[in-house]
Amino acid sequence: MPSHEDMVRAVERYVEAFDKGDARMASDLYADDATVEDPIGTPIHQGRDAIHAFYSMSMQAGAKLRLDGPVRTGGDYAAFAFTVLVDFGGPKEIEVIDTFKFDGEGKVTEMRAFWGPANMRAVDA
Amino acid sequence: MPSHEDMVRAVERYVEAFDKGDARMASDLYADDATVEDPIGTPIHQGRDAIHAFYSMSMQAGAKLRLDGPVRTGGDYAAFAFTVLVDFGGPKEIEVIDTFKFDGEGKVTEMRAFWGPANMRAVDA
Repeated sequence: MPSHEDMVRAVERYVEAFDKGDARMASDLYADDATVEDPIGTPIHQGRDAIHAFYSMSMQAGAKLRLDGPVRTGGDYAAFAFTVLVDFGGPKEIEVIDTFKFDGEGKVTEMRAFWGPANMRAVDA
Repeated sequence: MPSHEDMVRAVERYVEAFDKGDARMASDLYADDATVEDPIGTPIHQGRDAIHAFYSMSMQAGAKLRLDGPVRTGGDYAAFAFTVLVDFGGPKEIEVIDTFKFDGEGKVTEMRAFWGPANMRAVDA
């Protein structure tokens, strides 16, 4: 099981991947057959290729992440609150909480993103 | 499926239940056969009686919750970040993220609390 520090580092790399617009850096955090459900309740992206395509698309919209408070970890999970800054018909902020489930190698096997329309708002440019 | 507002109200009642030290108010948010996993990775409390006993014990330690940022909702889930203030051999703060899954009646069927030892720290009285 990865340590607290390992899981925090993965979250920090995830944020950094968006900063750099590097979809490969994000998808490399995942295990081969991982799943991504973002937002929760929508169809799941399964496998690293599908996940890579999903992040490529998100990053084309220029999405950046700003962590809101410390990463919580317990068992083989990390959970973290953040705000997404994205240009989508004008600048928007989306408030999100993600959970990552890790395997023994420290790769993410399951990501779920908790947010919906009520968590998105327009912001001044 | 409950609305965003319904789910936010349930979270607010949960916080209020701790403020009042009212374990029944907390356990009444749950469906009959709901599950609580707190912290994640530990044995699950199943059924409203077991959940009520769990909250009674937590509240005896005087735990209070302070929300950290807005409640995120998507599909039939809510996720929220908060800090627990508790006296446990001296005042402590624990940073937690909870997820609630709701049924069609607006009752919580599954709660998972994401936190671990690294999210707990002593604070000045």
